[in-house]
Amino acid sequence: MQLRNRGELHLLKEIRRRFSPAPDAPDSGVVIGIGDDAAVIDPKGKKVLVTTDMMNEGIHFDLAFSSPFHLGFKLVSVNVSDIMAMGGSARYLFLNISMKKDVDEAFFWELYEGIASAMELYRVELLGGDLTAALNDTVLSATVLGEGDRVITRGGASVGDRIYITQPTGDSACGLEILKSLTPQSREAVRRERFAATGEGDNGRRDLEMIVHSSATIVSWKRTKPLLARHLMPVARDPRPLLPYASAMIDVSDGLFIDLSRLCDESGVGARVYLDRVPLSDALRYAAEIMGLDPLVPATSGGEDYELLFTAPADSVPGAFCIGEVTGGERVVVDRDGREMPLRGEGYQHFGAA
Amino acid sequence: MQLRNRGELHLLKEIRRRFSPAPDAPDSGVVIGIGDDAAVIDPKGKKVLVTTDMMNEGIHFDLAFSSPFHLGFKLVSVNVSDIMAMGGSARYLFLNISMKKDVDEAFFWELYEGIASAMELYRVELLGGDLTAALNDTVLSATVLGEGDRVITRGGASVGDRIYITQPTGDSACGLEILKSLTPQSREAVRRERFAATGEGDNGRRDLEMIVHSSATIVSWKRTKPLLARHLMPVARDPRPLLPYASAMIDVSDGLFIDLSRLCDESGVGARVYLDRVPLSDALRYAAEIMGLDPLVPATSGGEDYELLFTAPADSVPGAFCIGEVTGGERVVVDRDGREMPLRGEGYQHFGAA
Repeated sequence: MQLRNRGELHLLKEIRRRFSPAPDAPDSGVVIGIGDDAAVIDPKGKKVLVTTDMMNEGIHFDLAFSSPFHLGFKLVSVNVSDIMAMGGSARYLFLNISMKKDVDEAFFWELYEGIASAMELYRVELLGGDLTAALNDTVLSATVLGEGDRVITRGGASVGDRIYITQPTGDSACGLEILKSLTPQSREAVRRERFAATGEGDNGRRDLEMIVHSSATIVSWKRTKPLLARHLMPVARDPRPLLPYASAMIDVSDGLFIDLSRLCDESGVGARVYLDRVPLSDALRYAAEIMGLDPLVPATSGGEDYELLFTAPADSVPGAFCIGEVTGGERVVVDRDGREMPLRGEGYQHFGAA
Repeated sequence: MQLRNRGELHLLKEIRRRFSPAPDAPDSGVVIGIGDDAAVIDPKGKKVLVTTDMMNEGIHFDLAFSSPFHLGFKLVSVNVSDIMAMGGSARYLFLNISMKKDVDEAFFWELYEGIASAMELYRVELLGGDLTAALNDTVLSATVLGEGDRVITRGGASVGDRIYITQPTGDSACGLEILKSLTPQSREAVRRERFAATGEGDNGRRDLEMIVHSSATIVSWKRTKPLLARHLMPVARDPRPLLPYASAMIDVSDGLFIDLSRLCDESGVGARVYLDRVPLSDALRYAAEIMGLDPLVPATSGGEDYELLFTAPADSVPGAFCIGEVTGGERVVVDRDGREMPLRGEGYQHFGAA
């Protein structure tokens, strides 16, 4: 059934029914939840963190690649990631969704399933939002509120700190390249996949092999799956293990080097990054070889990994890779032969010149 | 210059420069403002109110009627109105803006001027947001955070309470009808007008007369201006004078009767509304007569007035019109001859059947 035959009020009523918090949740901090003019929370003396992000059809996502489930999950993840990048814990979600009237109701509810799946993973509660018709593209935006005691900004790095990344980057950008090159059949098989948010579980597709379009190359589902999952359903990294160490932090949304440049801008520092220390996942190495790519390109300039990039005075931080150090000089990259080059903060820029 | 030649980062930097709070504002509650992964506020023990609303081109606005300045102002107003409808004070603003790459930079900055004008009026501070490209339509969304001590929900009305409205409704809907019927020249003159947010001031257009399209009727600028202003640049009503009285409250965004029905739903009560007590503005009476309309139609079912509709046990409330009473029975309207009819909560519904 198309949304035009359902009506906004029916949908809102159903969302409210499905997402109203259990009445036995006294520690939720929620004074007024979904359904009034505004939600009301009681932060009980804690600081409140707020972030908002938008995802537009044709710009941030392509419905030929992403299912509504993927989109819903990712919308929550990218916002939660911004809260986590400040060292906070995500608590509350507000959604703005606009789509065409002829969208099928099943699309709408699959989007909500993806949202609900992420809400469960991050333990965030839906407290409000807006649902409107659109003339053309589907536009999604979310606002996430969180809480935190110690806040870690982009501006706290000091000369002598080390630079760390939580996990290898580039997987998401490589996953997107794979998606673009798949045959329509392979792509649709990927689109139907609900990647387990933990990265485990195969949903019975253990033996799926995917065929790449132009070259008729066959790529292994099992080996490329982490890349596809990272692009379609990225999981925000929990910053809590890093809080005792981190002096400055940012999440890698636009690319390792551009986001490092932003951190350096705010901290007023330089950086030296060693290319041979930039971690690369096995999946990225595998796919890059097949695609004839240098894996360091997506690892340093690919966006949407949502790994945490941080600085810390410590010589090592459990669960993170040291890729360089904070300096008082220029921002440079050291290649495998020890040669220094300027670090270029390149990445995706909206409204950038074509 | 088109946005594609400017780049997102330049625009964001400029927004940050223009909107960063003055460093001598220690009571702002802002720990971290624009420019990090998330904003951080310290509510200092107060409750936090949160609302978010979207405005889509072709659905909520038509750029042939509204200037970017109008849109920016209205975007802030409709969100502030939701905070005020809970009895709160608006404090912080977050924006999501997406528009096509070929939009002229002047459009973008005029939008921001409208936003800044509303920010000044309501004393809200811009703390963050997202700026992205769009394939087709301009989509705007805002999130406003506020604070409040006593929160007034839609659910607090009791049998015997009176029903009040702050100012006449229907002006906005009638203003839209006038806009639709103007000649292109008259419409463009209205579009260029920056209505003073207070409703005062004429910007030297005191003598402008506007010509209505189909009938070649001339309407008076001075007499219709309040209607046009209410539609293009609605001002949210300050609830503070009502706080000692109000038991339940909602802002009239979709129409007086539909929003009253929502208040009744949440309070679990009935209502009796006297049509001859529904206030009508002089401007609405004037325009309705020219257009051959019953002014009660826009007054009871027209949307986007953003007046406050509330209930109170008191027999009278200064600065508000009593239009009826809360009952334990059905929701009824009493016409001028004393006849009762069912109150129909009709108003605009997204995804409603055509």
